[in-house]
Amino acid sequence: MIVKTPSPPYYTVIFSSVRTSVDHGYSEMNDKLFDLITRQEGFLGAESAREEIGITVSYWKDLESIRKWKENAEHKMAQAKGKSEWYRSYKVRIAKVETDYGFEK
Amino acid sequence: MIVKTPSPPYYTVIFSSVRTSVDHGYSEMNDKLFDLITRQEGFLGAESAREEIGITVSYWKDLESIRKWKENAEHKMAQAKGKSEWYRSYKVRIAKVETDYGFEK
Repeated sequence: MIVKTPSPPYYTVIFSSVRTSVDHGYSEMNDKLFDLITRQEGFLGAESAREEIGITVSYWKDLESIRKWKENAEHKMAQAKGKSEWYRSYKVRIAKVETDYGFEK
Repeated sequence: MIVKTPSPPYYTVIFSSVRTSVDHGYSEMNDKLFDLITRQEGFLGAESAREEIGITVSYWKDLESIRKWKENAEHKMAQAKGKSEWYRSYKVRIAKVETDYGFEK
């Protein structure tokens, strides 16, 4: 569930979104994209939750891997549908993880 | 809902957690901490959602503001209770936001 990322530095993409009420293939596309992203070069894992707001945090080896994922053809189609149908608003933030620590029972 | 952050660079703390089934004042502490954090110097806002995993992403002006929040006395008490009671596991990642972009209908 919580991604076992390597020691920093690595990169993260924080995708925060508010949905419309339109479904139109959203769940199918979500599943498909998840399947695709796990096969991307440099992908380290992702964590996701949605209540009023949806947050998906993905982790990446470097900026080049993130750039390639952004340009992936199927992902681009999803981005277009996201704007026209699924999302009322979203924000993408790309950040370099400098420190991390955790706790496990 | 989605935080209106200033132009990068700014910092983010990604707090990913899995809860125990223990409540014991969790909601009250959550509300209290939210009230406290909004009055912290350098705090820019936070986004939060919980399903199987909980994700809280807070945004900060700089690392010094994050350090001070980590050392805040009431926050430290909450951290201790978090370990002993509320969380099965968590991970904190501190990252520098280098790029962002968004979309709004």
